[in-house]
Amino acid sequence: MSLIVQKFGGTSVRDAERVMNVARIVTDTFSKGNDVVVVVSAQGDTTDDLIAKADEINPNASKREKDMLLAAGEQISISLLAMAIEKLGYHATSLLGWQAGFQTSSAHTSARIRRIDPSRIKVALDRHNIVVVAGFQGASKYGDITTLGRGGSDTSAVAIAAAMHADLCQIYTDVEGVYTADPRKVENARKLKEISYDEMLELATLGAQVLNNRSVEMAKKYNIELEVLSSLTHAPGTIVKEKPKMEKMLISGVAKDTDVARISVISVPNIPGIAFKMFSRLSAKGINVDIILQSIGHDGKKDISFTVARPRVHEAVEALEEYMMSHGAKEIVYDDKVAKISIVGAGMESHAGVATKMFEALYDAQINIQMISTSEIKVSVLIDEAEADKAVKAIHDKFFD
Amino acid sequence: MSLIVQKFGGTSVRDAERVMNVARIVTDTFSKGNDVVVVVSAQGDTTDDLIAKADEINPNASKREKDMLLAAGEQISISLLAMAIEKLGYHATSLLGWQAGFQTSSAHTSARIRRIDPSRIKVALDRHNIVVVAGFQGASKYGDITTLGRGGSDTSAVAIAAAMHADLCQIYTDVEGVYTADPRKVENARKLKEISYDEMLELATLGAQVLNNRSVEMAKKYNIELEVLSSLTHAPGTIVKEKPKMEKMLISGVAKDTDVARISVISVPNIPGIAFKMFSRLSAKGINVDIILQSIGHDGKKDISFTVARPRVHEAVEALEEYMMSHGAKEIVYDDKVAKISIVGAGMESHAGVATKMFEALYDAQINIQMISTSEIKVSVLIDEAEADKAVKAIHDKFFD
Repeated sequence: MSLIVQKFGGTSVRDAERVMNVARIVTDTFSKGNDVVVVVSAQGDTTDDLIAKADEINPNASKREKDMLLAAGEQISISLLAMAIEKLGYHATSLLGWQAGFQTSSAHTSARIRRIDPSRIKVALDRHNIVVVAGFQGASKYGDITTLGRGGSDTSAVAIAAAMHADLCQIYTDVEGVYTADPRKVENARKLKEISYDEMLELATLGAQVLNNRSVEMAKKYNIELEVLSSLTHAPGTIVKEKPKMEKMLISGVAKDTDVARISVISVPNIPGIAFKMFSRLSAKGINVDIILQSIGHDGKKDISFTVARPRVHEAVEALEEYMMSHGAKEIVYDDKVAKISIVGAGMESHAGVATKMFEALYDAQINIQMISTSEIKVSVLIDEAEADKAVKAIHDKFFD
Repeated sequence: MSLIVQKFGGTSVRDAERVMNVARIVTDTFSKGNDVVVVVSAQGDTTDDLIAKADEINPNASKREKDMLLAAGEQISISLLAMAIEKLGYHATSLLGWQAGFQTSSAHTSARIRRIDPSRIKVALDRHNIVVVAGFQGASKYGDITTLGRGGSDTSAVAIAAAMHADLCQIYTDVEGVYTADPRKVENARKLKEISYDEMLELATLGAQVLNNRSVEMAKKYNIELEVLSSLTHAPGTIVKEKPKMEKMLISGVAKDTDVARISVISVPNIPGIAFKMFSRLSAKGINVDIILQSIGHDGKKDISFTVARPRVHEAVEALEEYMMSHGAKEIVYDDKVAKISIVGAGMESHAGVATKMFEALYDAQINIQMISTSEIKVSVLIDEAEADKAVKAIHDKFFD
């Protein structure tokens, strides 16, 4: 008998029919002799509807009250799923975050899990109940309701799996697993049987948002085997684990990220510390910088280019303008029509020429590279957004055909 | 400085505009130097919407899960109201039933309040916060979410007022107070300035559902002064207290109850204990019997008539049929087109002729009386439902013109 944690996102429980579908998956797993803990997000648009209600009254409400409001979403979905499980003739116990033992920090709307006391979950499992836990939420030590922020339900699921030493943590979603490229865009994209935590982390960062990063980091830390799979088909998904069986592939995927913009500061004087001061002005505003490129410089001047999340580009330019201009820079330009294309693969570490093969694919497709960034298991290039899909296809064909 | 508990029902907070309206009432009371604890029901149709969602999945869901689901309703309304109060520049803390210290029995969907530990409410008040508490809900000693059943939010409000020795408990609703008759039906119905707990209890039982009975009983037990008033007008409401100032009225109101049906068992043999056995069959099914009338009997036979709640009339007839017929009764007939009209007033105790005056009013209006029942502060008659409104008007005119 195994302990299996199954997590279902908002689209998987968006209406009565989908809730019944999830109940069938869950009871199926239970009837095969497993203990099952289910983690559920709020139904479909519930969270958006609740935010709209709040915004109508007070868009600047305190974060504590926002958490109180949003946590009602999972309360609805866990009770409905428990009812659906009962309908199929099984016993179910729904538990809110605090009831399931999630103690978090007090950082409302983006709380961190401090510890999990799974004693109530265990009691319910011992009584042969399927346990349905509200994802995304917990309570602070003061007894205030907190939420974990984006992707919080994935994190909840992995955290329970870790706290209870589960044998497997299945993340059900609306795709069948992790693909070598976006299957809606690249015809011959292949579903991966297995992928390592590190590769998954890089892919998540790069806009292939199948799994939330915090949850993958936690799975890696506690060595929890994850499976990403679809709640609508019965196909096996992709296993995320420390050492996947190698499928003789150099790379595990090609990812596109269009949530990016490039900023270039032209003719920055070659004064020590100026780059540091520039980037600290951005980090003071909580703006993360990704790829950074600095020209070699001549005449005591250099150009510094970097990328930021697209919605923050104007804020970033504003934060720098006065300071940089008064320190001798010539101008600040930006381009918010760019895309970051990345290849990810643990195989890169031992194989030379992977980056070259990628550049060759782009050259063959006549796509210009604006910036390049590499890590041990990743190569990213910045290109014109209009050519993003073509680039993904060209690179994918090069590696997988 | 006083401590005031204010309770707002679902219609008072049904949309953003109404929530802001409630926030203004609450902050108004606070800014006059009072400590304010607000108890709120779920918004307008939220509860019905949630029940519809549940019924679509499993109409026979466990009561535990129904409570889990419904409790989300007040969670939404308390956070929205807290946000509205913040919008007006005040500090607010919303608290769920369990956070506000409501410990209840484990009787899901109709739990009883066991004790209230208001320590979190006190801490928030000490920090000059307006405290917004979820009505209708609590938690059992096992940490399961419970709900108090119909009218639970009134009970929550009075219970907090009792636990905290509040100076006043205001029940805001969509009527301006307690009237001598239904003001929508009787043109010259008058709003009462004051009424006693006992009179209020009789009126509540009789279908004038301004206040839930449990809450009035609790207010009487702990001597909490209630005020029933409208959240939409700024008129003073009706005070409910132990010894109201007499307004020189014989009766305080005329009430109509159409949720009633009459059952008659014809030609019951005059055997000792047969009535007892008959009524115990009904109580075994949880069917309450109200007015009972037994004919004097002749030839060793008698007729027994009684009233039950209208939705249960068929069940009641079924429960009796076989037993009564096999014990010699001739037939069982019922009438679900009847109405109970009652007059209520503490003044009756000391004034003879009140019942006579009521019967005279009905005689003048040519309305036939089917059954009569009296208590110390109440006279009820059963009449044809079609004549109910006419009867109320005739009686009201007789006493109040």
